[in-house]
Amino acid sequence: MAGEMQKWVLMATAQTPTNIAVIKYWGKRNEDLILAINDSISVTLDPAHLCTTTTVAVSPTFDQDRMWLNGKEISLLGGRYQNCLREIRSRATDLEDEKQGIKITKKEWEKLHVHIASHNNFPTAAGLASSAAGFACLVYSLAKLMNVKEDQGALSAIARQGSGSACRSLYGGFVKWVMGKEENGSDSIAVQLADEKHWDDLVIVIAVVSSRQKETSSTSGMRDTVETSMLIQHRAKEVVPKRIIQMEDAIKKHDFAAFADLTCADSNQFHAVCLDTYPPIFYMNDTSHKIISCVEKWNRSAGTPQVAYTFDAGPNAVLIARNRKTAAELLQRLLFHFPPNSDTDLNSYVIGDKSILQDAGVQDMKDVKALPPPPEIKDKVPSQKCKGDVSYFICTRPGRGPVLLSDESQALLNPATGLPK
Amino acid sequence: MAGEMQKWVLMATAQTPTNIAVIKYWGKRNEDLILAINDSISVTLDPAHLCTTTTVAVSPTFDQDRMWLNGKEISLLGGRYQNCLREIRSRATDLEDEKQGIKITKKEWEKLHVHIASHNNFPTAAGLASSAAGFACLVYSLAKLMNVKEDQGALSAIARQGSGSACRSLYGGFVKWVMGKEENGSDSIAVQLADEKHWDDLVIVIAVVSSRQKETSSTSGMRDTVETSMLIQHRAKEVVPKRIIQMEDAIKKHDFAAFADLTCADSNQFHAVCLDTYPPIFYMNDTSHKIISCVEKWNRSAGTPQVAYTFDAGPNAVLIARNRKTAAELLQRLLFHFPPNSDTDLNSYVIGDKSILQDAGVQDMKDVKALPPPPEIKDKVPSQKCKGDVSYFICTRPGRGPVLLSDESQALLNPATGLPK
Repeated sequence: MAGEMQKWVLMATAQTPTNIAVIKYWGKRNEDLILAINDSISVTLDPAHLCTTTTVAVSPTFDQDRMWLNGKEISLLGGRYQNCLREIRSRATDLEDEKQGIKITKKEWEKLHVHIASHNNFPTAAGLASSAAGFACLVYSLAKLMNVKEDQGALSAIARQGSGSACRSLYGGFVKWVMGKEENGSDSIAVQLADEKHWDDLVIVIAVVSSRQKETSSTSGMRDTVETSMLIQHRAKEVVPKRIIQMEDAIKKHDFAAFADLTCADSNQFHAVCLDTYPPIFYMNDTSHKIISCVEKWNRSAGTPQVAYTFDAGPNAVLIARNRKTAAELLQRLLFHFPPNSDTDLNSYVIGDKSILQDAGVQDMKDVKALPPPPEIKDKVPSQKCKGDVSYFICTRPGRGPVLLSDESQALLNPATGLPK
Repeated sequence: MAGEMQKWVLMATAQTPTNIAVIKYWGKRNEDLILAINDSISVTLDPAHLCTTTTVAVSPTFDQDRMWLNGKEISLLGGRYQNCLREIRSRATDLEDEKQGIKITKKEWEKLHVHIASHNNFPTAAGLASSAAGFACLVYSLAKLMNVKEDQGALSAIARQGSGSACRSLYGGFVKWVMGKEENGSDSIAVQLADEKHWDDLVIVIAVVSSRQKETSSTSGMRDTVETSMLIQHRAKEVVPKRIIQMEDAIKKHDFAAFADLTCADSNQFHAVCLDTYPPIFYMNDTSHKIISCVEKWNRSAGTPQVAYTFDAGPNAVLIARNRKTAAELLQRLLFHFPPNSDTDLNSYVIGDKSILQDAGVQDMKDVKALPPPPEIKDKVPSQKCKGDVSYFICTRPGRGPVLLSDESQALLNPATGLPK
């Protein structure tokens, strides 16, 4: 890189999945470094249906770091962005791009500004953990651009400083965030328990639940819980460690019954400690409760769990079915209890992997109306169906970790200007 | 009592209050004797607004034990009724009724059958702890009839075997149920911490919340919690004992801030362990959450608690205001957020001590519609008011314990026949 002003723009584009915890992370022991008070385990969701795509670019023409999220410029001044940028920059190494004839030394990286454009393929603010996929993608794409040589575990520790659960989005399949012991957080990293092919029977249906309430942010919520709940320390120290061992074992053995029992119990306990917080935090609403009740009745009548449920810091239900057949039966039940509003198109009411809808034998609204009540509630069919309580459903499955997209047409920044396309 | 068939009927009528726990009872260590896993503390509610009246009668003409609840005959075969009847009968003593010229010896009591008629002055099945007042009144009235000489504590231990919380209805004011240590439950009794005059500033408003969900009975609910919750033992052994000491102190010192903080936190923790139960138990619904949110916002903006909330095994809110002025302000807020349906008469929407409604300056529906938003939400007034979410409000206060009603016109059984009037 010579002294004169050069016009080149160097870019990298990556795609990173979101993830859903089945053993929950709730509570930090260090707010700045984002160090958890217990281990957690998650399932990575298929990026085909839920992912973040991020393009990062560097150019001597950029005069400041800038970022666009879903097309709108946002500030990078927040500590979480600054932490990720600083940590990645400090690990940049000498780079030679032969195609463009560019050389950047470790030292030069520190002076170069970056442009970042990020996009979610799912509605933001729907409470679908967009910050996990977002920070994971930011860190992963910057690491690729800046020729960072650290392994995925070290990258996960950087993503963790953007958003705790982001560290788990650095891998596909089943992932554990090890809380670690070090004060500097160097051992608080994600590790992959099994890849997405290990247990590919599982099918995931997400119910995006309509909500009028403004929700407590998970950052302030977990701070309040740690400060005021009389139960959270008992959960973190006595309950979760045992569940982590049991969950690892259940995943290893494809033991769906154990997996479902642990997933549901841990989701419920997370919401229990939220309720034990002062003032109490309610993330689930009456619709969430109805979905749980529907699943619990079915599981009980089947004698063994068919579906697991888990809820993050919001009313949306993430439902994990043991296989495709069960997923189709689940969708029938969900559409029976929660039919779309009359002005909603079925095609926009069930999105993602629509083949599950076909398996369920539902092609149009006529089929939804004709759905029989599930056998387990035959004698006590609810008089009132819950139209409009669910905004839409997303059908998906466990999926892969981050990937670099080499096709330049998928980049979100213009390769000539480094500005959003 | 001679050998020949005699026609006399001997009766006693008593009135017993209901109570609301401020440190909750949830979980038994002995299901048959109803022995709790922790102490609990309650406030007795004024029987003028919420009470059970029970008339018990004995006559040589009765050929079996019979009971009528709110005019409808019910079975006495359940273990809980049988336990109370057996324990009271075994403590009966020789009685001489001079007016009617009747003598009954201890031995004769065992052969005489009883008739029982019980009536609640509030809607049953509204989740207002009718079983507590009911069993307390059954035991108290039978003890009076049968000349039982035991003290109130011993009677509370008998009522406890009908319904755990019933033992606390044997006293007015502030009452502690000491869980005790003995295996036979003899030391698991209620004691009065302070009578109803000790802290007579307090005003209580109950919001009876409309609910479509069938609720889990508290008996099976607490059994499931003890069997499946990983948090309940920590609550019972580590959290509650400290709160009991703090609550006794708060009551002694009329320390409303401490009283309110403990009451709210313990209600929330009770619902937290319900949620931590498998399958989870939800007693509160979205309306309950809205009421909590309304109170929390007000308390925070006031800088010190104005109102405490507590919820039992259902969605109804019991709100305890620090004094009459606060109670009027509370009622204004509640009527602002939860106005009655347009076809509801204000007179049947706010019942009990209607003078609070006058203090609130609300005389008719016009006044309800004119209520300004509370100052703490001035800038974010909800677009949607929650019409119909609350069935009605009951205004009341801490009240006295059981009393014998000597006026025969108040008896629920015909003194000639021993059958319901």
